[in-house]
Amino acid sequence: MNRSDQPVIAVDIGGTKIISAVITGDGGMLSRVHGLTLAQEGPKKVIGRLVETVKRSIGKAGLRISMIGSICVAAAGIIDYNKGLITEAPNLPGWHNIPLRNILAVELDTPVFLLNDASAAALGEHRLGAGQGLDHLIYLTVSTGIGGGIIIKGELYNGADGCAAEIGHMILQVDGPPCKCGQRGCLEALASGTAIARMAGERLARGEQSILTGMVDSSVKSVTSALVSVAARKGDTLACGVIDAAAGYLGIGLANLVNIFNPQMIIIGGGVSRMGEMLLKPTRKAMKAHAFKLPGRTVRVVRPGLGLDAGLMGAAVYAWQKGEVTG
Amino acid sequence: MNRSDQPVIAVDIGGTKIISAVITGDGGMLSRVHGLTLAQEGPKKVIGRLVETVKRSIGKAGLRISMIGSICVAAAGIIDYNKGLITEAPNLPGWHNIPLRNILAVELDTPVFLLNDASAAALGEHRLGAGQGLDHLIYLTVSTGIGGGIIIKGELYNGADGCAAEIGHMILQVDGPPCKCGQRGCLEALASGTAIARMAGERLARGEQSILTGMVDSSVKSVTSALVSVAARKGDTLACGVIDAAAGYLGIGLANLVNIFNPQMIIIGGGVSRMGEMLLKPTRKAMKAHAFKLPGRTVRVVRPGLGLDAGLMGAAVYAWQKGEVTG
Repeated sequence: MNRSDQPVIAVDIGGTKIISAVITGDGGMLSRVHGLTLAQEGPKKVIGRLVETVKRSIGKAGLRISMIGSICVAAAGIIDYNKGLITEAPNLPGWHNIPLRNILAVELDTPVFLLNDASAAALGEHRLGAGQGLDHLIYLTVSTGIGGGIIIKGELYNGADGCAAEIGHMILQVDGPPCKCGQRGCLEALASGTAIARMAGERLARGEQSILTGMVDSSVKSVTSALVSVAARKGDTLACGVIDAAAGYLGIGLANLVNIFNPQMIIIGGGVSRMGEMLLKPTRKAMKAHAFKLPGRTVRVVRPGLGLDAGLMGAAVYAWQKGEVTG
Repeated sequence: MNRSDQPVIAVDIGGTKIISAVITGDGGMLSRVHGLTLAQEGPKKVIGRLVETVKRSIGKAGLRISMIGSICVAAAGIIDYNKGLITEAPNLPGWHNIPLRNILAVELDTPVFLLNDASAAALGEHRLGAGQGLDHLIYLTVSTGIGGGIIIKGELYNGADGCAAEIGHMILQVDGPPCKCGQRGCLEALASGTAIARMAGERLARGEQSILTGMVDSSVKSVTSALVSVAARKGDTLACGVIDAAAGYLGIGLANLVNIFNPQMIIIGGGVSRMGEMLLKPTRKAMKAHAFKLPGRTVRVVRPGLGLDAGLMGAAVYAWQKGEVTG
C-alpha cells in the first residue's frame, strides 16, 4: 500500500519528555502532545509510554492509526539504521541494542523509522529552516550534551551504519575533563550546558566572586548554564568568563568541522544557543582564528530557523522521504 | 571538442618533486617523468619547471599536446576549485592565491583541473585501489605532514570551495605542540613524520638512552622518522615509545573521524605508513578505545592498494571524470 500521501507521525524522545506530533504532507501540524519519559524506569516502561503518547496524538488529530503513513522516532543515541536498533543512548539508562523499530512497528502496525535527534534537526533546518537550498551544512545542538547532523550534497549523511555525525564526541583536548560517554576532552565536555555549569561551579568553589553565589540556593552544584547566562547578561565577570571559555572551545570544534567539511553553513541549536550572540560572537571569532582562511570566510554560523521544533519537523521530513522510497 | 577518449596527464607536485604521467583511459601509463620542484625559487620558476616536466612526459609518450584530453594537477595545499587557485601551500613557499589552473591552461592549451593531493589519493584508492566499491571511506596520508581525502556515497567530497578534508589540521590538543599551519595541537603536529622526529629529538635531548644516538651524525636535530622506524624495528625502547605515542594520537584522530563519518574504511598512506603494522596495530587499538562501539567495529583501517601512486592515479581518474562532464 502506498501511504505516502497520508499524514505522518514525528516523535522526539529525550531524557525528560516524549513529544508526538501528527503532521501532514504540507507541513501542517494536526496535533502535538507530550508525555514524560521517566527514563529511570527502564526501556520497557518508556516504550509503553511512547506508544501511548503516539496513540494520544493520533486521537487528538481525530484520526485512526490506519490513516497514518509512517512514524519516525528521533532519539538522542547511537542508532543502527540497518537493524533498527538504539545501540547506546546516554540519556536513556538501560537502553542497549533495543530493537525499537520492530517493537513499534508491531505495536502500532505502521512502518517505523529511527533517526538520531540532531540528524533529524539538520534535515528539518535544511528543508524548512535556515539552511534551505544549501548543498553542505552542519547542525549542532548545544544543550545538556552536544549532538550533530550533517547535510552533504543536499542530503542527510548517516554513514555506513546510520550513526555518523557524533560531533559532540570529537576529542579536542586529550586528557581533558571527563565526558558522559566515557572519554575525556570531548567537545561536549568542554562546551555543553553541562560543561558551562561545571566550569562555573569550579570557579565558585575556588571562592571567586560572582552574583551567582546569591542565585544558587545552597551548594555551587546547583548552578546551571541558564543561571550562568542570566548572570552574564548582568555583566558578571565570572559568568562572562565561563561563557567565553565555552565559546572558545566551541569555536575550535567548529574550526575542525570547517577544515574537514568546508560547509556553507553551521547551525547552532539547542537550549544553550538561546544565549544568542553572547555565545555565537566569541564562537565565530575562535572559529575564524583556528580554521583555514578560505573555508573560514565561506561558512556562516547561525541559529536555527525552526527553533526547538527542528528535530520534530525533520523527523516528519524523514518519514515522508522514506515513505516515498518504500511506499 | 570532446577529448574524453584521449589520454590524460596526471601531475603530482610536492615540496621536493614534480611527477608527470601520461595515462590512458584503461589506466595504462604511457610515460612517467619527474623533475625537481626547487620550491624555494618561488612560484614563477616552479610553474616553469612544472610546464617543462609535463611537456617532457608528453614527448616521452611519443605524443603531442593536442592529443591530450586534459591535465589534473594534484598539489598539497588549500585549493579554491571554483576559482582555480592554490590559496595556501605549506610546502611551496610564496604560493598565495596563485591562479595555477588558468596559467597552465594558457601555457599548455589544454583543460586543466586542480585537486588536493590527498583527495586525489582518496579517489585513486576508491576507483583502483583498496577501497573499490565502497560507499564511504577516508584516506589519510601520513608523511612530513598529514593530508586527507573523503569519499562519500562513492564520490569525492570537496566541500563548498573545494578545500574540504584538511584532516591533518583537526585540533586534538588545545595548547599542544605548534603546527606548521600556525595552530597548536593539530593531528599533524602530534602524529606526522615531523612529530615523530620531534618527539624522538626531545627525548634524546633529555639524555634518554637509545641506539638512535649512534645513528644520527652530529645533533639530535638530524633524527628523522625513518631512523626512528629503523631503531624501533631493532627493539629500541625510546623509538618504540615514540611510535606508540604517535599511534595513540593518530588513533584518537581516527576515532574522531569514525564518530563523525561512520566510514567503512580508513586508508593510511604516505611515507610514515610504510612502518606497517608497527604503527597501524597500536593506531587501531587507540581508535577502538576512543570511538563508539558500533562505528569502531564497522571501520577497517588498512594500507593503500596503490602505494605511493594513489595520488597520481587519482588525478588521472579526476581528469577523466571532469573530461566527461565538460567534454
